[in-house]
Amino acid sequence: MVDYDLMSLLEELREKRPLIHNITNYVVMNFTANTLLAMGASPVMAHSIDEVEEMVSLAGALVINIGTLSQQWLESMLQAGKRANELGVPVILDPVGSGATSFRTHAFRTLVKELKLSVVRGNPSEILSIISEHGKTRGVESAHGAEDALEAAKEVAQEISSVVAITGPVDIVTDGEIIIRCHNGHPLLGLVTGTGCAATAAIAAFNSTTTEALEAATAGLAFFGLAGQLAGAKANSPGSFMIALLDALHDITPQEFQEKARLEEG
Amino acid sequence: MVDYDLMSLLEELREKRPLIHNITNYVVMNFTANTLLAMGASPVMAHSIDEVEEMVSLAGALVINIGTLSQQWLESMLQAGKRANELGVPVILDPVGSGATSFRTHAFRTLVKELKLSVVRGNPSEILSIISEHGKTRGVESAHGAEDALEAAKEVAQEISSVVAITGPVDIVTDGEIIIRCHNGHPLLGLVTGTGCAATAAIAAFNSTTTEALEAATAGLAFFGLAGQLAGAKANSPGSFMIALLDALHDITPQEFQEKARLEEG
Amino acid sequence: MVDYDLMSLLEELREKRPLIHNITNYVVMNFTANTLLAMGASPVMAHSIDEVEEMVSLAGALVINIGTLSQQWLESMLQAGKRANELGVPVILDPVGSGATSFRTHAFRTLVKELKLSVVRGNPSEILSIISEHGKTRGVESAHGAEDALEAAKEVAQEISSVVAITGPVDIVTDGEIIIRCHNGHPLLGLVTGTGCAATAAIAAFNSTTTEALEAATAGLAFFGLAGQLAGAKANSPGSFMIALLDALHDITPQEFQEKARLEEG
Repeated sequence: MVDYDLMSLLEELREKRPLIHNITNYVVMNFTANTLLAMGASPVMAHSIDEVEEMVSLAGALVINIGTLSQQWLESMLQAGKRANELGVPVILDPVGSGATSFRTHAFRTLVKELKLSVVRGNPSEILSIISEHGKTRGVESAHGAEDALEAAKEVAQEISSVVAITGPVDIVTDGEIIIRCHNGHPLLGLVTGTGCAATAAIAAFNSTTTEALEAATAGLAFFGLAGQLAGAKANSPGSFMIALLDALHDITPQEFQEKARLEEG
Repeated sequence: MVDYDLMSLLEELREKRPLIHNITNYVVMNFTANTLLAMGASPVMAHSIDEVEEMVSLAGALVINIGTLSQQWLESMLQAGKRANELGVPVILDPVGSGATSFRTHAFRTLVKELKLSVVRGNPSEILSIISEHGKTRGVESAHGAEDALEAAKEVAQEISSVVAITGPVDIVTDGEIIIRCHNGHPLLGLVTGTGCAATAAIAAFNSTTTEALEAATAGLAFFGLAGQLAGAKANSPGSFMIALLDALHDITPQEFQEKARLEEG
Repeated sequence: MVDYDLMSLLEELREKRPLIHNITNYVVMNFTANTLLAMGASPVMAHSIDEVEEMVSLAGALVINIGTLSQQWLESMLQAGKRANELGVPVILDPVGSGATSFRTHAFRTLVKELKLSVVRGNPSEILSIISEHGKTRGVESAHGAEDALEAAKEVAQEISSVVAITGPVDIVTDGEIIIRCHNGHPLLGLVTGTGCAATAAIAAFNSTTTEALEAATAGLAFFGLAGQLAGAKANSPGSFMIALLDALHDITPQEFQEKARLEEG
């Protein structure tokens, strides 16, 4: 049993309404902002090199998401991330598409090398794309099963000294030692764009409330997964599911969160 | 009592379906376009320095919104705005995030200095961020109450020779002399991203119908606020509220607009 | 009667879940991604010159959409398109706003000249904006009627050696010889932003399944139009229509697609 006090985390989030600074991709900006607002945080999107350092100094957490990346945006991400590190603002990375193109994979590696990341969240192939840099023989391709992903997640977490969160039918969170599985979620999450990115933002929201990255990542995925689960009980198709998901992010009470999060250690 | 002929304004808008040119932020582009379409206007988004002058010459109004701003976009905004001024196309400004970073605050001031703005719409802190430039002693921080915001709105309107619209629990519109309050609206508007930006676009839609900026700003906020109010009667959570809001923007009849707008002068 | 095996096309699409690479405009990215996911494809958005060639090599089709265009993006479109041509990946073009500004019209012409396009989809004025380049005397302005558009569509298709798809109350698809009309669709499609762009993406999804461009364009417009028609039977206002549309894109079965597509040749 995982004994996090999820109820208090959510209560605190909604009391504080922390500002979450997102440097994220064009596709998901709107949905990410709506996710953060619905669950109780305050989103801001800002990417210009002329303001990211100042903006992140106002924030409770920084989300860096490399979807629709360009070189210019990568420079802003690095600058914002470095300032966040100086200030102790947690940095949460979503390496969208890493492994698909060398530009994205290289960006992921650069961000890992240059920044102290609190949590990295991705799907298995994105997360595992970091490994080959470190000379591991096991390629991304071999880690298709859930158990392979689990071992690889621990390995990556140790390599990059961050908490790693891998989302899938069962979500996995690890700091390289402890492993927590989250059994909430719903298959329709895979048919709405930006749900992974929004889960990353949910982690950031909780990481502005607790500095414990493992707890924040677990809370974020459990909360977002529970919202998906509740939405899936109301809607059978992706359009109405997306709306029910935003509703659920708002409607879940702290007590309901504590009771319905299905977490398992090990 | 405010005796604007809101019914005729909405009828005319829906007959003309004016093209509204938006240079706005990435987060809200989709929702802004859907807002304009639903209420009866024709949105176009174009930001390239290679076409903004030509595009604005086709438009009934220009929206400039400085969320997710970069230096390059600011240059396009200035170029489009200057051309709009030459052509007599009303320019409506939304200074998103002014006051949060010096880049945004400076952008707001530059746009105010370089352009003739018809209406500026923001929340209290955004609007008040313009004041310090003019050597006022009262800082942004002191104007937290509704009455403070009201006096400051008049002051800003006089300073920048534009109509100022401040949205909040009660919306305020002023040309520096006359003050109109709008009592429509709904708290859930604060939990959907881009509703302020969409209200700005609604003002632009009406400003393409009437050149009276005070009337246009009042009509825009009353119309958008009424849509929020009607949506809030149907939905209790932000996802379904957002959809009900788009529906209401489309479904409100001219007569209903006239009857249900809750405006008050002074 | 048109005797395409639409049932098998949709079945194959949903089995393969092909990756569709989109270089598209900011306004519609989210809705396009959700459209592709709902109907059974896998969207990716990537525009950086540093990765478009590599990304398109993974894709079953490439969508180029010139809304919110800038010079930098146009260069990426050309580079991605040329690589797609080399690899035999079908390229589908949506010339959003061509005819409105010279920048967009010039971009349309440049893309037509530099790339081998499988399908070009637009509204009548966008499609017809290409003609004047070729010295035709009939201007865009004269082709307001459906029959004019039809003749012009054939002419354009012959000129640019691509299948041309024109959407409107009745959709038209032609390769310059054969003409197919699609009678599905719904008026509310015109009140949701990005539905034209999403129809283009639907064509791309089918073009990754069949290399026959005429068949792919017909299937894409019939499928998207049918989804609109079914959504219009459930919703009367644009917000709820948009959600019902995403639901329908997911819920239409291969058999229903075959039975309800209303196609007519000639």
